[in-house]
Amino acid sequence: METMNVGIINVTGYIGVELARLLWQHPGVHLVSVTGRSAVGEKLGEVFPHLADVDLTIESELGEGVDLAFSALPHAVSAEAAAAALEHDIKVIDTSADFRLKDVEEYQRWYKVTHPSPELLSEAVYGLPELHRAEISEARLVANPGCYPTSAILALAPAIREGIIEPDVIIDSKSGVSGAGRTPTLTTHYAEVNENVSAYALDGHRHLPEIVQELQDRTERLSLSVTFVPHLIPMTRGILSSCYARLRSEIGVEGIREIYRDFYRDEPFVRVVDSPPQTKHTWGSNLCLVHPTVDRRTGRLVVISCLDNLVKGGAGQALQNMNLMLGFPEGMGLGGITIYP
Amino acid sequence: METMNVGIINVTGYIGVELARLLWQHPGVHLVSVTGRSAVGEKLGEVFPHLADVDLTIESELGEGVDLAFSALPHAVSAEAAAAALEHDIKVIDTSADFRLKDVEEYQRWYKVTHPSPELLSEAVYGLPELHRAEISEARLVANPGCYPTSAILALAPAIREGIIEPDVIIDSKSGVSGAGRTPTLTTHYAEVNENVSAYALDGHRHLPEIVQELQDRTERLSLSVTFVPHLIPMTRGILSSCYARLRSEIGVEGIREIYRDFYRDEPFVRVVDSPPQTKHTWGSNLCLVHPTVDRRTGRLVVISCLDNLVKGGAGQALQNMNLMLGFPEGMGLGGITIYP
Amino acid sequence: METMNVGIINVTGYIGVELARLLWQHPGVHLVSVTGRSAVGEKLGEVFPHLADVDLTIESELGEGVDLAFSALPHAVSAEAAAAALEHDIKVIDTSADFRLKDVEEYQRWYKVTHPSPELLSEAVYGLPELHRAEISEARLVANPGCYPTSAILALAPAIREGIIEPDVIIDSKSGVSGAGRTPTLTTHYAEVNENVSAYALDGHRHLPEIVQELQDRTERLSLSVTFVPHLIPMTRGILSSCYARLRSEIGVEGIREIYRDFYRDEPFVRVVDSPPQTKHTWGSNLCLVHPTVDRRTGRLVVISCLDNLVKGGAGQALQNMNLMLGFPEGMGLGGITIYP
Amino acid sequence: METMNVGIINVTGYIGVELARLLWQHPGVHLVSVTGRSAVGEKLGEVFPHLADVDLTIESELGEGVDLAFSALPHAVSAEAAAAALEHDIKVIDTSADFRLKDVEEYQRWYKVTHPSPELLSEAVYGLPELHRAEISEARLVANPGCYPTSAILALAPAIREGIIEPDVIIDSKSGVSGAGRTPTLTTHYAEVNENVSAYALDGHRHLPEIVQELQDRTERLSLSVTFVPHLIPMTRGILSSCYARLRSEIGVEGIREIYRDFYRDEPFVRVVDSPPQTKHTWGSNLCLVHPTVDRRTGRLVVISCLDNLVKGGAGQALQNMNLMLGFPEGMGLGGITIYP
Repeated sequence: METMNVGIINVTGYIGVELARLLWQHPGVHLVSVTGRSAVGEKLGEVFPHLADVDLTIESELGEGVDLAFSALPHAVSAEAAAAALEHDIKVIDTSADFRLKDVEEYQRWYKVTHPSPELLSEAVYGLPELHRAEISEARLVANPGCYPTSAILALAPAIREGIIEPDVIIDSKSGVSGAGRTPTLTTHYAEVNENVSAYALDGHRHLPEIVQELQDRTERLSLSVTFVPHLIPMTRGILSSCYARLRSEIGVEGIREIYRDFYRDEPFVRVVDSPPQTKHTWGSNLCLVHPTVDRRTGRLVVISCLDNLVKGGAGQALQNMNLMLGFPEGMGLGGITIYP
Repeated sequence: METMNVGIINVTGYIGVELARLLWQHPGVHLVSVTGRSAVGEKLGEVFPHLADVDLTIESELGEGVDLAFSALPHAVSAEAAAAALEHDIKVIDTSADFRLKDVEEYQRWYKVTHPSPELLSEAVYGLPELHRAEISEARLVANPGCYPTSAILALAPAIREGIIEPDVIIDSKSGVSGAGRTPTLTTHYAEVNENVSAYALDGHRHLPEIVQELQDRTERLSLSVTFVPHLIPMTRGILSSCYARLRSEIGVEGIREIYRDFYRDEPFVRVVDSPPQTKHTWGSNLCLVHPTVDRRTGRLVVISCLDNLVKGGAGQALQNMNLMLGFPEGMGLGGITIYP
Repeated sequence: METMNVGIINVTGYIGVELARLLWQHPGVHLVSVTGRSAVGEKLGEVFPHLADVDLTIESELGEGVDLAFSALPHAVSAEAAAAALEHDIKVIDTSADFRLKDVEEYQRWYKVTHPSPELLSEAVYGLPELHRAEISEARLVANPGCYPTSAILALAPAIREGIIEPDVIIDSKSGVSGAGRTPTLTTHYAEVNENVSAYALDGHRHLPEIVQELQDRTERLSLSVTFVPHLIPMTRGILSSCYARLRSEIGVEGIREIYRDFYRDEPFVRVVDSPPQTKHTWGSNLCLVHPTVDRRTGRLVVISCLDNLVKGGAGQALQNMNLMLGFPEGMGLGGITIYP
Repeated sequence: METMNVGIINVTGYIGVELARLLWQHPGVHLVSVTGRSAVGEKLGEVFPHLADVDLTIESELGEGVDLAFSALPHAVSAEAAAAALEHDIKVIDTSADFRLKDVEEYQRWYKVTHPSPELLSEAVYGLPELHRAEISEARLVANPGCYPTSAILALAPAIREGIIEPDVIIDSKSGVSGAGRTPTLTTHYAEVNENVSAYALDGHRHLPEIVQELQDRTERLSLSVTFVPHLIPMTRGILSSCYARLRSEIGVEGIREIYRDFYRDEPFVRVVDSPPQTKHTWGSNLCLVHPTVDRRTGRLVVISCLDNLVKGGAGQALQNMNLMLGFPEGMGLGGITIYP
């Protein structure tokens, strides 16, 4: 097995540094180049002391010889960087939203920019291995899913594909603050977030369309009607999604768990669990825990899913995609056990 | 206006000490007696340094001359204490669940004990002033609502009374840890709760039946089907409930807010707000903030409500009830502004 | 007793809004005017929902008829505003550092600006009522102490005045994040502060010179050598200072506590306690708890003090000063019991 | 290199499960047996969901074939278990305090029990590799240091050995809550710890004597006088120690850093850093960061050190000791990069 050279475009955010941590420890690749829009010329370990062992300088452009690049740029500029990399025969995993939505107008409506590279949308693969493993393996360009969508889609895909629920779906998600990125704002100011919980984006969060796209693709029978409400809670890492839908048929909780276990039978990073999971059970690992159950008084399906938003909801999933694209074992470099407590 | 004497039965939990704080500062009453099941004989300020100014010794029994007592005992033993107090012509506000449910069998099913004083159930008033103000004013025995129910009922009562939603209702609540009480358990152990979020009681939380009782009482048209899922989040105080229901009619967000503003027009402690509220906006105050809105893509009503679980969700609401029962202005001793940040 | 009119210059920071909360509830004054450097023209309750009851609009300049103004501006600009107010016969309590240091060169060395109003320094009184009550009562201009200095000076003043310690003093302080203000920075970004502790300003914190000035003023015998190291810890409010000095004489812990109790005998807001205090015991109140003890193995004095940095370490102390300046009872509007937990 | 079999006695605490996580991922050993005082007969992954991959059942006694055992029992019972294991030719790393102090009377004074195996004290090696690497490599019985002592000793050993400071030493340590273990108590109850900081054990913490023993062993010139005050702060993992001592000679900060860099030149897990370190820079890793500096106004040495109390302050250091005892590369299984943020 050949070692491959990889790079990170815009390493200075939380997804970027988490990629650096994971890639540096990955036995099959060399992290050879990292870029930034700030801190150019500084050693990575000077800006991020926890990366002191990673002997790289932040550059303005990717260096030579990169086989695959991760872009952790904001949307719109990320698509431009991805297009440029592809032209140099560099495979790309884009962690922005630019290539997640198949419908360019939908993208432009939600993100309020003109898509810089719409011609690449048909080629891009939505990088959720549990749904698109084969295409990812063949892809040049993978759109790494959002953190909320990963938790929501994995929670609901089995029930929707199996057709056991009504199309009305509610997804109530709770996220730690790191999902909002590393740029300081009043919303992420410590004294504002600590000892506080709030709902936000009640008029529509940008992660909704990718949730709908991927869930709707699981079924022809249902025309889904999805309400998604994200909440900010006082912790750094972790997303927990509580999903609600009315059951169509008389199916017991055991039958439902069987459907879920079948769906995820060979998945290395999705675990169907019999007790309500906690984000702490996934901290620092690439796991997504899924707990389907039934509110027997109302006959409603309730699915709780959780993950670490920077790993399975971000950099870890990007590595999983990279492993598929480069022919490594899917779990390579992702075997670390959750750190508890 | 005559000063009244009040006492607290079982002051040593979080509701008990919050009652002590508020009663000590209330200009119309004297807090003359506090009891405990532990720490009997100790000064209140020795056990709880923040109450050093409250010059009372924890006793095993209520002292003489109490006009009104708050019971902060656990369920079942609380009903016994309440019955005994009533026999001594002491009015009672019970913060346990013992007198909240009108149906004794429902109570016994959920709480798995024989009710010690079922004969008092018909007389007890559910102490949510926004729904039962007149009866509370006349009552000898008031059942102070649970923290989750206060937030959920206030969020949904206007929509249900007005008949604008379908009967399928989902209540997804997020609570700080103080709601679980002061007795140490693994669930409330710092290292387990910090940097963690989890759903619990997925097979039915004991606060569900009082939510259903009070909401169903608001309507004859609908037969409600309520799913309630509580979550534990890493903060001390605060509950935020996100409520979801399908709208029955073509009513816009402005119409809905008008319904809510009408419903709560003269309420001193419920505020209908136009922006998504945060628990931090209620910290230490007796406010409940309610924000109704519409997910326009799906035509679904979304109501976010929040409060401080130990004030409007506990001791503050108990004082509000006391004010009504004793003829004081309803907001007396409850005017403190939210402490922020 | 006449009601006085007060105003807040620059209400939009954490000290500013805490002043607004306390002044609005103060029975002896009317808060009639608040200014801001941003949000001019907006209602205070729109920018700060917890102040919805405070019916004031943020202005660019103080309104007419103000008897006393609080300046919550940053240093340098605060002195200018104070000087202007004094010219209009408005008494001033300045919460910035501008009038705390008697030595203008010391000020200019630490703050790296030219002092705009050095002529006012001799008139300004350092607003720690426990040390300067009489002068504060007569003052037109009071310099409200820093949060760290309040905790450190109150911890050490009795021992230094009594001459029981050697001049080598170490102050190791731990502060919540609100002390850093409301402007978002990477240092106060939630994901950076949460689950983290750090020391900072190891080459000298600006609060050091006022600590030294006030402590040195307590003694002629000793020439103090003070090391002060502040730490940032993951909480919103609270400062705890641990102070260390070698004892000069054979004095037992009881003798030391007697000295401290004597020193603070009639103080309404300093409490000498026999058990190690916690910041939680002062949350939201104007108390400073002081616990002197002796490390008997080494004969070293250890004093632990704590307070709420936004109340006794900020806005509460400013009110205490106002009460003295305007002839109100010193504790008026400051009697609220600590909110726990 | 031969694979060795290892076991954990009393896996059910935080040190125990952290050992399980690290040992399961260690390429040179097989974790073959774990015992508990509770949960016997249950799968490890049922009690600790994050260890679902670790296929072991909790037993009442260590199984056969164990070459080396970690004891994570409380003191006194741990010594008994260690003695029993040694009799079966099993090497032991004891994470309790039982074999840390060379003086059995000192032990008995601090721990208030009769030492069950005093005859083993002379053979036991204090397991701080930076000070005792050679003896550890030869040892049958290693006493793993306490979390506070690891941070304090590493912060001060170079200065003391070099003789650059006066014997008066103050160690002010701040610890996350996991150091108090997994047994729920009021002190570790979430609502008590959150938004709170406190000093404790002011009359002497049990970690003091091992700090003194190890530091005093570094010097014949000085007779140390150590004050150690631990503080509890609201976070799960991490210890930061701030250490203060007067410098004896005119030595600049560069000279001091040179001494420290020399002392730790070849150490894989101690890093002398030029900026004040944060516990977040060590989260989940085996690093101890040490930052010596000088308070130039007072000529005082200030050393800030930090580490993860469950890794370098616990299970990680135990693995480092195991690697030395079994002849593995010292850093094997300990190379994981700090997880940030």
